[in-house]
Amino acid sequence: MLDFEYKNPTKIIFGKGKIKNIAKEIPADSKVLLLYGGGSIKNNGIYEQVKEALKDFQFLEFGGIPANPEYEVLLQALKVIKEENITYLLAVGGGSVIDGTKFLSSAALYEGRNPWDILTKSIRTEKGMPFGTVLTIPATGSEMNSGAVITRAETQEKLGMGGPGLFPEFSVLDPQVVSSLPERQLVNGITDAYTHVLEQYMTYPAGAFLQDRFSESIMQTLIEVGPRVIKDPSDYEAASNFMWCCTMALNGLIQKGVPTDWAVHSMGHELTALFGIDHARTLAIVAPSHYRYNFEAKKAKLAQYAERVWDVKEGTLEEKAVIAIQKTEEFFQSMDIKTKLSDYTESYEGTAQTIAKRFTARGWTRLGEHKALAPSDVEKIIEMSY
Amino acid sequence: MLDFEYKNPTKIIFGKGKIKNIAKEIPADSKVLLLYGGGSIKNNGIYEQVKEALKDFQFLEFGGIPANPEYEVLLQALKVIKEENITYLLAVGGGSVIDGTKFLSSAALYEGRNPWDILTKSIRTEKGMPFGTVLTIPATGSEMNSGAVITRAETQEKLGMGGPGLFPEFSVLDPQVVSSLPERQLVNGITDAYTHVLEQYMTYPAGAFLQDRFSESIMQTLIEVGPRVIKDPSDYEAASNFMWCCTMALNGLIQKGVPTDWAVHSMGHELTALFGIDHARTLAIVAPSHYRYNFEAKKAKLAQYAERVWDVKEGTLEEKAVIAIQKTEEFFQSMDIKTKLSDYTESYEGTAQTIAKRFTARGWTRLGEHKALAPSDVEKIIEMSY
Repeated sequence: MLDFEYKNPTKIIFGKGKIKNIAKEIPADSKVLLLYGGGSIKNNGIYEQVKEALKDFQFLEFGGIPANPEYEVLLQALKVIKEENITYLLAVGGGSVIDGTKFLSSAALYEGRNPWDILTKSIRTEKGMPFGTVLTIPATGSEMNSGAVITRAETQEKLGMGGPGLFPEFSVLDPQVVSSLPERQLVNGITDAYTHVLEQYMTYPAGAFLQDRFSESIMQTLIEVGPRVIKDPSDYEAASNFMWCCTMALNGLIQKGVPTDWAVHSMGHELTALFGIDHARTLAIVAPSHYRYNFEAKKAKLAQYAERVWDVKEGTLEEKAVIAIQKTEEFFQSMDIKTKLSDYTESYEGTAQTIAKRFTARGWTRLGEHKALAPSDVEKIIEMSY
Repeated sequence: MLDFEYKNPTKIIFGKGKIKNIAKEIPADSKVLLLYGGGSIKNNGIYEQVKEALKDFQFLEFGGIPANPEYEVLLQALKVIKEENITYLLAVGGGSVIDGTKFLSSAALYEGRNPWDILTKSIRTEKGMPFGTVLTIPATGSEMNSGAVITRAETQEKLGMGGPGLFPEFSVLDPQVVSSLPERQLVNGITDAYTHVLEQYMTYPAGAFLQDRFSESIMQTLIEVGPRVIKDPSDYEAASNFMWCCTMALNGLIQKGVPTDWAVHSMGHELTALFGIDHARTLAIVAPSHYRYNFEAKKAKLAQYAERVWDVKEGTLEEKAVIAIQKTEEFFQSMDIKTKLSDYTESYEGTAQTIAKRFTARGWTRLGEHKALAPSDVEKIIEMSY
């Protein structure tokens, strides 16, 4: 097991009808900015519940934060925060709204001239404006971690940020929200959470037996409840497990003491930036090729995963590892997630070279758990994903 | 899945040689009271490491906190805290020292006249004196939770306390400490952690699939590394997993969203109070009888546990459930933990009646996950444990 530090101070409030509890969590004298996305919360009753909960607070609203939270839109919200002397942020939405709110939490207290520097200069946020969240789409885990990914359309970039100051103070998880989600968001959520686990698990054995089993537990549960959620999103038992899996997949716990990869995300982000493909789907496109390309380095864990998660008991280690990749692809495909770039765009030619060049330009020359993947490897992996 | 709230702000600092990090965690102007037990830390180098880490702080020492932290001894430490204007506590030890420190954290700021009331009146501690821990014996999980159990020899009582103000601010977990532990403490730790999981798992199915798998993960890992740790406590891979299992077994995570039992602990505490039997061993005495007595209520989970943890694939649900109890007993016995009260004392006659009477006197008439066990049931369970 590798050495680690772990601290996660977010308070989770999980269950039916818990949105009203936010009134107890936000300091009474706060001036709140309520942030949300495209307005779906106005159709499923969540907006009304949140407004009712905030009725004794001074608050303003900022709607319209798009999927893949867009820098230019966030700058407008930042203007509101500063002009209106906002002291508390409340994100009501999925990963995009929460990530956007994390950027705002950081930018609101940032003393530099240009908030984009927080992303390009990897500035770690030690202290942000306090914020809470009401999660409406289980997927990214942003509701219980301190990271965010922000997109800038102008430069077709999608960059990460984070720091211990960016944990939500609280997050309300009411699994009933799942019932109003379209199938596309459900399968994206399942795929996103599943791939989050893979990024922290599909590396090499590091003697972290408990963490391995926790990761396997999340994947097993997603395999078990995923089809039930898709079939009937009002199945509370399935929805509640789906929701908690998504949070646990990326709240930091399973990555402690183990090597992590994250190359799939680095490559996937580029496909979203270039083609607008849903984040989760980019992961399903890249992951199988990534594991095939890095087969030797990852085959021991692939085989363990085949045995424990997919119950593959026969065959050599290599045979099990091959089956593991197939099973993963089939799982994505069973949810109607396409696993090739050409399924999403006809203009995929040259993508591998474009991405490799961008990685070179950014100095991203040491990706993966061994910090051994160069842009030339990325080029080959993306080509295998066509 | 049941509704739940979860927040655990303790910072874990895990790995080799991390004791020196405590200097960064304690506020610079603190006046520290260093608390420890019987002095084993003076033989294994931990005391020297802690003193070196505290060299720039004002600090006093209070040693001699016994196993099952004794109220009268703690009152002496409380006097030191008040007379010397201590502002920060540092527990260096196992669960007893950490639990004792939690009592002191609460009592130091308690405004009532009699600190024993914190225990007898179940006073929840919202704010305590800040404290950190250096864990020297993996077992109780106290290093990452907000509960404590305190003993009062005068009245042969062992009572619990807790509250959100009693999480350690930080806990240092260096698995190298395991190498200096005697076998007795190792097997106690494995048994204690294992039974902690059982108390939160061996109830009835509540549709919390992920939590079930996490619990099974901890038990599987303990079964895997336990014998390795006993055979060679300097096996770092095994020791680090053992240590992290103990913490995860009782840091609150696996109990969220599920019913919990804890009747085994309630009964076990009495055996420690009456006979001085090691805490972990009292759990191994009581648990098998408890599961046999409550077989109907628990058989579904017993069978799931048999299948997933002990790989029992044949037989009816009832047959699997019976095997589950046998396997659990055999696991304890394989570590030379005796599982009958008569293995520890010749004067066991009447114990069941004594304990039942004490429970009646305290009004403890609704134990277990169904809150259905009366003192008359307790009497039968203890008799079955003779």
